[in-house]
Amino acid sequence: MRKWSKMSESNQNGQRGKRVFKKKQQEELSIEALVSSLREGNRKALAQSITLVESKAHHHRQKAQELVQGILPYTGSSIRIGITGVPGAGKSTWIEAFGKLLIKQQMKIAVLAIDPSSSLSGGSILGDKTRMEQLSHHPDVFVRPSPAAGTLGGVHRMTRETILLCEAAGYDVIIVETVGVGQSEGMVRGMVDFFLLLALTGGGDDLQGMKRGILELVDAIVINKADGDNRDKALTARGDYRGLLHYLKPATPGWNPSAYAASAFTGEGIEEVWNVINRFVKETKESGAFENRRSSQALDWMEQMIMDRLYEEFIQKEGRKDQLAILKEEVLRGKLLPTEAAAKLFS
Amino acid sequence: MRKWSKMSESNQNGQRGKRVFKKKQQEELSIEALVSSLREGNRKALAQSITLVESKAHHHRQKAQELVQGILPYTGSSIRIGITGVPGAGKSTWIEAFGKLLIKQQMKIAVLAIDPSSSLSGGSILGDKTRMEQLSHHPDVFVRPSPAAGTLGGVHRMTRETILLCEAAGYDVIIVETVGVGQSEGMVRGMVDFFLLLALTGGGDDLQGMKRGILELVDAIVINKADGDNRDKALTARGDYRGLLHYLKPATPGWNPSAYAASAFTGEGIEEVWNVINRFVKETKESGAFENRRSSQALDWMEQMIMDRLYEEFIQKEGRKDQLAILKEEVLRGKLLPTEAAAKLFS
Repeated sequence: MRKWSKMSESNQNGQRGKRVFKKKQQEELSIEALVSSLREGNRKALAQSITLVESKAHHHRQKAQELVQGILPYTGSSIRIGITGVPGAGKSTWIEAFGKLLIKQQMKIAVLAIDPSSSLSGGSILGDKTRMEQLSHHPDVFVRPSPAAGTLGGVHRMTRETILLCEAAGYDVIIVETVGVGQSEGMVRGMVDFFLLLALTGGGDDLQGMKRGILELVDAIVINKADGDNRDKALTARGDYRGLLHYLKPATPGWNPSAYAASAFTGEGIEEVWNVINRFVKETKESGAFENRRSSQALDWMEQMIMDRLYEEFIQKEGRKDQLAILKEEVLRGKLLPTEAAAKLFS
Repeated sequence: MRKWSKMSESNQNGQRGKRVFKKKQQEELSIEALVSSLREGNRKALAQSITLVESKAHHHRQKAQELVQGILPYTGSSIRIGITGVPGAGKSTWIEAFGKLLIKQQMKIAVLAIDPSSSLSGGSILGDKTRMEQLSHHPDVFVRPSPAAGTLGGVHRMTRETILLCEAAGYDVIIVETVGVGQSEGMVRGMVDFFLLLALTGGGDDLQGMKRGILELVDAIVINKADGDNRDKALTARGDYRGLLHYLKPATPGWNPSAYAASAFTGEGIEEVWNVINRFVKETKESGAFENRRSSQALDWMEQMIMDRLYEEFIQKEGRKDQLAILKEEVLRGKLLPTEAAAKLFS
């Protein structure tokens, strides 16, 4: 699949291929042609498919669903890795170092970003293509900025569908990167196989800004920047985190999460993390935990889509938003029982 | 309020009071009379009100709403304390020792239980009235078994409404006790001011069975059974937990949770915990965190009632459950996209 996709790409670049992908034709491009280009690993087809999936236009939505449903049989074979960490933990440089290791092992990797702050700042701080300079220009790497601002449910759906698109396009490892704030980690944990926290040597202090319960979502903690003067401190922090993880219930049944030290700068420890991930995949596939998680993730996704749809239909009704605001105010002032407020909305 | 309620009770026992509460009349009892008896601290009126709130019959539901809405102006002045811990942590004996201390300080206390396992075992292991022997017979103490098995949303509503009923009846401290498994701790955290975890000296091992993220929900950890040979170990565990809490984001803004050692057997450390709770209430009331939490709890409650109602109406439609089961199966077999499955349910 990987080689075939490369061939297809060079064909395309040289305008010699049979299924030449023409940008000017993209509007008329049939779903069948898009599925076919995707499966050949065509990068432009992938980028266009993701844009379709991220579109809010109603007619795009239907087409997108058709597309993702069409590629569904060709999905599921990648390793999905979530990476989180406080701002400053060095996520980009770490992913760059990690990605270079995977490329050497003949892997194709996709890096997707979820940036909950983009809806506030108006732009994506994670999706900046100028980050991960070396990685983003490699033919075996696909870097995609975070989707434009939207509801949490919307971002969730887009990213889930983008993971599937990348898998159909032959990517072996999908990395979903998120800033460790707000509700995004829970969301990312809900769509990946392995969840990794990048921490620093500051001990608990550097986690204070993270979402509550983050440590109980992770399959591994990597203390980054374990180099130079900082190396000893990183090893101490690694010991602290290992002790800490002993107190917490593992995120994946049968897998005991541990802490590791690594340096994106010297490269030390990066391969160890990759070995840990491979061991995780092997063990959880044998125990069934891998498949169980994927199944429950699919059902959770379905359930979330149902609840989102129910709430959306409910709240769109004439005057409902105003009524809700008034009732909330009464609840807050202690005048109205929350149960009674809910009942009024339905009467 | 406390004294008045006691007078009312003795009046009633002696059949001399003006508002005699007669059991045989309970069916015909008006909401006004019930509100009035409740506010006098009448225990039977309280018990009957709770039964009404827990009833699943539709005509009871309406009456219950009317009742709780009626007592709403007289609620909110208690301290709501949630207590969780693994089975074997000694919750009952600890609550008994804690309760006796509060009674001495002229407090009226109510102990409510949430027992997620009762739906499985068919009976309540927490609500057993034979537990807390000394406490449950005291006139200033009201012990209520957990509500009968129901949906999580249902149990949530019943317990929230029961807290309000107890407050209207003049109880100063409401303790909500839960077994530390499943989803009950998150639910209890969502309805109390102060959340306390009873742990043992076994370190992390005794928390392994607890819900993920439990440590990040608590305002204090109490290592129980700090007596005899176990006392030194308890002090060591206290130190470990204090170190651990440093790594976690506090559950209540501005309050740094800490660990304490106590013994329900010798009584050592019990008063310290009560002092901590009083300091918590004072500080969070000054900072506004106390009121903020209560407000957001009320809104969360309202939101949950809305979502429960939406899902209930949706799933009750003819053939919907069967359709859902079929679609889930297709999603699980990887034949159908979760988004597509949700869309089919709405088409």
